[in-house]
Amino acid sequence: MVQHFFYPETIAIVGATADPKKFGNTVTVNLVENENVTSKLFPINPKSSEILGLKSYPSVIDVPKEIDLAIILVPSKAVPIVVDQCIEKKVKRIVIVSAGFGEINEEGKMIQEEMARKATAEGIRIIGPNCVGIMNVDIGMNASFVITPPHGNVSMVTQSGSFGAACLYEMEWQGLGFSKFANLGNMIDVNLTDLLEFFKEDEATQVVCIYLENVVDGRRFYETLKEVTQIKPTIVLKGGRTSAGAKAASSHTGSIATDYSSLKAAVKQAGATLCESMSDYVTAIKAFSYSPLPKGNRVGLFTNSGGSAVLFSDNLDEFGLELAEFSEEFKEKIDPYVIPLVKKVIALDMIAGARGEEFYQVAKAMFEDPNIDIIVPCAVIPTFLEMEPDEHYKGAIRAWNETGRKKPILPIFMSGKLMNQVKKVAAEENAPIFMSPKEAAFAAKVLIDRKKKFQK
Amino acid sequence: MVQHFFYPETIAIVGATADPKKFGNTVTVNLVENENVTSKLFPINPKSSEILGLKSYPSVIDVPKEIDLAIILVPSKAVPIVVDQCIEKKVKRIVIVSAGFGEINEEGKMIQEEMARKATAEGIRIIGPNCVGIMNVDIGMNASFVITPPHGNVSMVTQSGSFGAACLYEMEWQGLGFSKFANLGNMIDVNLTDLLEFFKEDEATQVVCIYLENVVDGRRFYETLKEVTQIKPTIVLKGGRTSAGAKAASSHTGSIATDYSSLKAAVKQAGATLCESMSDYVTAIKAFSYSPLPKGNRVGLFTNSGGSAVLFSDNLDEFGLELAEFSEEFKEKIDPYVIPLVKKVIALDMIAGARGEEFYQVAKAMFEDPNIDIIVPCAVIPTFLEMEPDEHYKGAIRAWNETGRKKPILPIFMSGKLMNQVKKVAAEENAPIFMSPKEAAFAAKVLIDRKKKFQK
Repeated sequence: MVQHFFYPETIAIVGATADPKKFGNTVTVNLVENENVTSKLFPINPKSSEILGLKSYPSVIDVPKEIDLAIILVPSKAVPIVVDQCIEKKVKRIVIVSAGFGEINEEGKMIQEEMARKATAEGIRIIGPNCVGIMNVDIGMNASFVITPPHGNVSMVTQSGSFGAACLYEMEWQGLGFSKFANLGNMIDVNLTDLLEFFKEDEATQVVCIYLENVVDGRRFYETLKEVTQIKPTIVLKGGRTSAGAKAASSHTGSIATDYSSLKAAVKQAGATLCESMSDYVTAIKAFSYSPLPKGNRVGLFTNSGGSAVLFSDNLDEFGLELAEFSEEFKEKIDPYVIPLVKKVIALDMIAGARGEEFYQVAKAMFEDPNIDIIVPCAVIPTFLEMEPDEHYKGAIRAWNETGRKKPILPIFMSGKLMNQVKKVAAEENAPIFMSPKEAAFAAKVLIDRKKKFQK
Repeated sequence: MVQHFFYPETIAIVGATADPKKFGNTVTVNLVENENVTSKLFPINPKSSEILGLKSYPSVIDVPKEIDLAIILVPSKAVPIVVDQCIEKKVKRIVIVSAGFGEINEEGKMIQEEMARKATAEGIRIIGPNCVGIMNVDIGMNASFVITPPHGNVSMVTQSGSFGAACLYEMEWQGLGFSKFANLGNMIDVNLTDLLEFFKEDEATQVVCIYLENVVDGRRFYETLKEVTQIKPTIVLKGGRTSAGAKAASSHTGSIATDYSSLKAAVKQAGATLCESMSDYVTAIKAFSYSPLPKGNRVGLFTNSGGSAVLFSDNLDEFGLELAEFSEEFKEKIDPYVIPLVKKVIALDMIAGARGEEFYQVAKAMFEDPNIDIIVPCAVIPTFLEMEPDEHYKGAIRAWNETGRKKPILPIFMSGKLMNQVKKVAAEENAPIFMSPKEAAFAAKVLIDRKKKFQK
């Protein structure tokens, strides 16, 4: 089972090195220096007896314990030998990070197929080759050369390591947390569907996201996707949608990219969330990671920026959605907190002088209003009246916290450099932040789409 | 002429205050504390004799010099009196920042119309009311409550102050410089077309950008837009594209939003660049601000990230564009700088180990190649092999600099927190940076569109 890749009691790092000039170093460091790691680590390197404070062994065979997982970092020509040793050692799972196989030429394809054949015959599963690795942030295991993101409820499987890395960077910056991560590389054994099956069962995984270029087992992929999506929001982005992209993808993983129109139909039919850009992808992940599904489709917007209200209204309309109408009761409730100039109409423009306290009060009134299902606080961060850059965000999140986080909140905050301060608060509060009206409107759309599909 | 708003020798700040708790303070500070300001400043406040080190006067009438420009910051009910005093003083131009007029009710509409009538009868032009102000970064004049951006070649006229502020924040963060900025508010006199006419003639303005909600003089706007666009790239974003957005816009500026389908047709016909989101808008501004127009439409991509190459190829294809084919000569030239694993095909994937020096060499080969018109270096910033987060960016920009910046460069760099370091280099080098494959593909599209339209 794929699950065993993610909960190893023992890990052999084959090609471990303390030399920061060598490729294997980052994976070694990411594993060894993670203070949360619970797995026992065995560096393998015939030239060292000790690596980063751990006893090192000449080969996996020499390790005096059973090995659950071997991470292979050695140059491509040495990989088949290491795989043979892993088979001899009865290692349970193998991740081959090393590149230089099927993505290069026919010979590489043959070599990788031979490794897969031998290993699977012994019940050993392989991820890779040509991948950045895997992680399970729950147990502090980062067997990859990507940064360790904060801990959270999102799990990702990706056919592009660098795309995964770019997403992780972006998410880490936004405080968005991960549970599992796997980059599959050339997929000589474990494939996307295997990961989906695992994510479906894995309790720590609450949001599933997939970047794919080619699907090898269409029918099984579709059936599994349908099952996962039923119980967990599942977000799909495909690279190689066009013929030009498909050509690039074939050079990238050595496989023929799956036709997009049929994949698109399948993803929609399964009820998963289809994205067509990295920005939409990260936006959808954020929406699902932080928010419960809305009860209905009525979006309440309040803002200190008239232009943003206009743009958000446009974006919402373009997605087929609408702003919530305000009840008389709601208007009365917010009356003490908005200046008389403010017209209490939908796309509530509280004007530039509105402060954090007003944001708190209006947000609270919206969370308590039975006619509003999704709350969108929106601010261009003011640099006047001695306002703090984060007071509006803090006000809105305080209202969300005090009302038990029962409705989705999609805060739009805009402001260049000052955003760093707001993002810090977002990370501390474990709350989302969106960078433009369009992002938040897209987030509302994916939440409402899922609500309509699965919670009638 | 509108030009006089932007080159005043003397400015009266009516409602100037040193109290940071008051609204007028930010405008006062932005004007007085800008060390580059060349205009002579006269704070007006009946309750002070000195403000921020400058002698203050009870009213404009008391100033012992001619006043070219008056910035009005006093509460709405006092504005008509101040305007009368400005007329008496024969002030040449007035910017009314104060809100509380036509955007509020019919009475406000009448009051603002009366002010406009009186002033224009005396040849005095008015910008506002209900606006964040204007700036001319060339002469250090920031008569607005928005931050002062770096100095550059972009001029913006916007019907939403906060949208303008959000763009300025974002651009400042990215090191993108401004020349002129004007937020028009309720447009009781000076309108979008007036600003366009000015930007057309203004030498420091090389890129024109417009955010609009309603156009009051359709035919004249169209004719002027057509003239400006002929000589300067002109970027248009409209708020209130949908009926929901139009409703929000009407609440925002007190005017009826212009129908989008006819505006869209007019903008395209004029040859301007139409955007439909803030992200596209900033992307287009960046593209035109830094880059010469390309000679042709052949886009050369190189990257350390296979997935990004796939996504960029998709984006390009979706915009109807194509990657450049590589000549044998080009392949030979780059051969020493890419490892043997790298296939020298379009969407050049140099694999994760590629360093700044290789980025430099490959970029240089592309700049020197007559078959490549636009160069796109793309990196997911590596955190291994002791690489510096900015070495790839620096390498690409070095090649751009050494080849005389004759071709557009559209660098895609992805990496969360580490981006701050790369952005700093971009600002120092006065060079662009794009955050995703889609952004850079859109930038290529707008450059190529303009090239096709105006440089056959």
